[in-house]
Amino acid sequence: MLDGLKIDVLSANLALVREGLVLMTWGNASAIDRASGHVVIKPSGVAYDAMKAEDMVIVDLEGRKVAGSLNASVDTPTHLALYRAFPEIGGVVHTHSHYATCWAQACRSIPCFGTTHADYFHGDVPVTDSMTATEAREDYEANIGEVIIRCFRDRDPMRCPAVLVANHAPFTWGKTVAAAVENAFVLEEVARMAMHTVALSPDQPAIEDHLLDKHVLRKHGSSAYYGQGGV
Amino acid sequence: MLDGLKIDVLSANLALVREGLVLMTWGNASAIDRASGHVVIKPSGVAYDAMKAEDMVIVDLEGRKVAGSLNASVDTPTHLALYRAFPEIGGVVHTHSHYATCWAQACRSIPCFGTTHADYFHGDVPVTDSMTATEAREDYEANIGEVIIRCFRDRDPMRCPAVLVANHAPFTWGKTVAAAVENAFVLEEVARMAMHTVALSPDQPAIEDHLLDKHVLRKHGSSAYYGQGGV
Amino acid sequence: MLDGLKIDVLSANLALVREGLVLMTWGNASAIDRASGHVVIKPSGVAYDAMKAEDMVIVDLEGRKVAGSLNASVDTPTHLALYRAFPEIGGVVHTHSHYATCWAQACRSIPCFGTTHADYFHGDVPVTDSMTATEAREDYEANIGEVIIRCFRDRDPMRCPAVLVANHAPFTWGKTVAAAVENAFVLEEVARMAMHTVALSPDQPAIEDHLLDKHVLRKHGSSAYYGQGGV
Amino acid sequence: MLDGLKIDVLSANLALVREGLVLMTWGNASAIDRASGHVVIKPSGVAYDAMKAEDMVIVDLEGRKVAGSLNASVDTPTHLALYRAFPEIGGVVHTHSHYATCWAQACRSIPCFGTTHADYFHGDVPVTDSMTATEAREDYEANIGEVIIRCFRDRDPMRCPAVLVANHAPFTWGKTVAAAVENAFVLEEVARMAMHTVALSPDQPAIEDHLLDKHVLRKHGSSAYYGQGGV
Repeated sequence: MLDGLKIDVLSANLALVREGLVLMTWGNASAIDRASGHVVIKPSGVAYDAMKAEDMVIVDLEGRKVAGSLNASVDTPTHLALYRAFPEIGGVVHTHSHYATCWAQACRSIPCFGTTHADYFHGDVPVTDSMTATEAREDYEANIGEVIIRCFRDRDPMRCPAVLVANHAPFTWGKTVAAAVENAFVLEEVARMAMHTVALSPDQPAIEDHLLDKHVLRKHGSSAYYGQGGV
Repeated sequence: MLDGLKIDVLSANLALVREGLVLMTWGNASAIDRASGHVVIKPSGVAYDAMKAEDMVIVDLEGRKVAGSLNASVDTPTHLALYRAFPEIGGVVHTHSHYATCWAQACRSIPCFGTTHADYFHGDVPVTDSMTATEAREDYEANIGEVIIRCFRDRDPMRCPAVLVANHAPFTWGKTVAAAVENAFVLEEVARMAMHTVALSPDQPAIEDHLLDKHVLRKHGSSAYYGQGGV
Repeated sequence: MLDGLKIDVLSANLALVREGLVLMTWGNASAIDRASGHVVIKPSGVAYDAMKAEDMVIVDLEGRKVAGSLNASVDTPTHLALYRAFPEIGGVVHTHSHYATCWAQACRSIPCFGTTHADYFHGDVPVTDSMTATEAREDYEANIGEVIIRCFRDRDPMRCPAVLVANHAPFTWGKTVAAAVENAFVLEEVARMAMHTVALSPDQPAIEDHLLDKHVLRKHGSSAYYGQGGV
Repeated sequence: MLDGLKIDVLSANLALVREGLVLMTWGNASAIDRASGHVVIKPSGVAYDAMKAEDMVIVDLEGRKVAGSLNASVDTPTHLALYRAFPEIGGVVHTHSHYATCWAQACRSIPCFGTTHADYFHGDVPVTDSMTATEAREDYEANIGEVIIRCFRDRDPMRCPAVLVANHAPFTWGKTVAAAVENAFVLEEVARMAMHTVALSPDQPAIEDHLLDKHVLRKHGSSAYYGQGGV
């Protein structure tokens, strides 16, 4: 059942470790099959070197287990909230990658300081509100999803496929789980660059809109001219 | 004699080097057999690549050598003080891991800035008082133990299994020596994250209690729901 | 056609990845055959591990494709502008290497703080003006070349073979593409050193001219005495 | 001629590269045979992977070549000045290792902030005066030796086997060239720790004398008790 997607999700989880975005078991990746509404996600607290595709857990969009013998990641309710709210996304990644997590802990959005950032994220990567005591105590992981979604009320999740959960860590997404992993990798480098940029220039403004738009459009617009064509 | 524990202690010492937590010979790990009150500890100043399980030294809780041909680590009196004071711990680790040592050198406790920290350490990781001239001159290593214990008078060592010795470096512990190594690894990443968090937000407050408690309880409380169950 | 140069350009592009100067596909290297005025450059958006010498694209100095089935790098117009303006250079490299990019994002020139810098770059490594809206919207990549050239009106490109494009990233060059790669590598370390130097000494002045000149001359002047002689 | 020492010097130079203390060809190591007054040193500007023991150059204490077909390192006059001034040292190392060089570029001595530092360097690692124009123009490399020696007028070079040359980079030494390499390695980590310590605590004072003396004496004094005894 969803064997191809299980392999994709396993590969994504292993890539996060290999690229240094996940230490210990601090992260998880999932993918959705939109036809069935079934989500494939990493099991909770299992060692990466022993993890197999068949260990991936399948749940429906309400969190009911559809298949799998292990418990799904504790962060499953957050993933599900994102899949329900953002219909265009096919994969979600959560990490505690070092620099992105530092911005999240500092409760600061990452400003767009350059073209490296602009090629992937249109404008700043936002930080959510802090959780209230009520949100933390009940349905904590689902409420993490809610504070993310609130943050994207006036923002297109496909043009900014990343968020920082305040006091916690980043989530990224994409059309596929592989795209979500790529966005997690780029977010980490962008976060590291931004930290060192403010070290050199504490009041550095974000780049101007004409440069931001240029980079978004040359790579993603209808008249994109980056790469070898095709999609 | 205690052959299994010797292998555990050797493995722990080698893991500290492999994970980059120990440079040169700046660190040591030990474990205690509570039944006999015997402690297995790394020998002093021996090269890691030549170290064998049978080189581990056995001492009693008063520091008398029970077995082994080499000298025990010079830090043995500190380990013993911790085993005497904290009856629940089974292993102790000392490193000069980079970021944790920088906080120790800055004589600052590490505030709990996020959930990564909260999953392992309940509240700040404290720094001890500086050693007085008297404490440094006589029974120096035993007195390091004493300043640590003083620091935990109103603190549960099992909920915060780490400390920074002022002007010196960290110690961690756990139910087993493997757990103490894991805590040393996490402490280093938490220390690095906290340093970069204050770089971005110099007056960043610690996370609120409701978030701290949530993370401690979802992983360690009686109704923990992280992982695959079991203990 | 230009098979030797294609191998040099491929090697240069692979070296950038191997040395950690290029993540993802964020960079490109080219070389010029001055006899024919033909430039060999990396294709756009192709994975490095599949790239072959025959994939390199050949264009003339006006950007017309001479040979190759793939699209040339989107940054080709910038490379061509540099070849037209700086007749002594034989190779150009563009990266988003971490620390050099942070200085570019901070819109700051890198001061010459020490002899490591002075051995390669005579004086500060300059940052360009920011692009105007007009420059960004039309002929963007050619205009990047123009802002670089403007920056070198009163500066010898052979004595300072590197520049930071504001809000973007560095370009380096040299007599050969291999020299341009070496300059990109040194620029990155010099940028990292300079960032940490200002962290320790925020108002640190550049080194004095007598020390700067000494290092340039002992390595590059007519009475150079570094190395084993020869050129 | 001095074949054993040539192997030691080659090994030392290769160790500097392997440990990341030397990039490009930015560094050199030498050793002295006190009986003959002959110094074995790395040749200038030769690639490390092609370097052989027989490439090492032998010079006397006045810098006259005794054996070897290649040019000696341009820094030879600095090494010789140190051997003449410090009769107890048997090896000298020069690197541009990152963090030590940043302190040198910032023209700041490295304060002793903790026991890691105190175990190797008694008190701060000093920075020299800046070179005057006269010193830079004539006999530059010999004058680097002179500013170092001036810095040690009231300091024991065996208790602080390292120095930062202002605007330039570090030199270390020891009883043997292997000891000088070890001191270069420790200096780099101590420099990195000190930089991050001041980031956390900009006005952090050096450790108190009683702690400094304790660490020096437990490792190096006549009643040292670190390690397995012997010298």
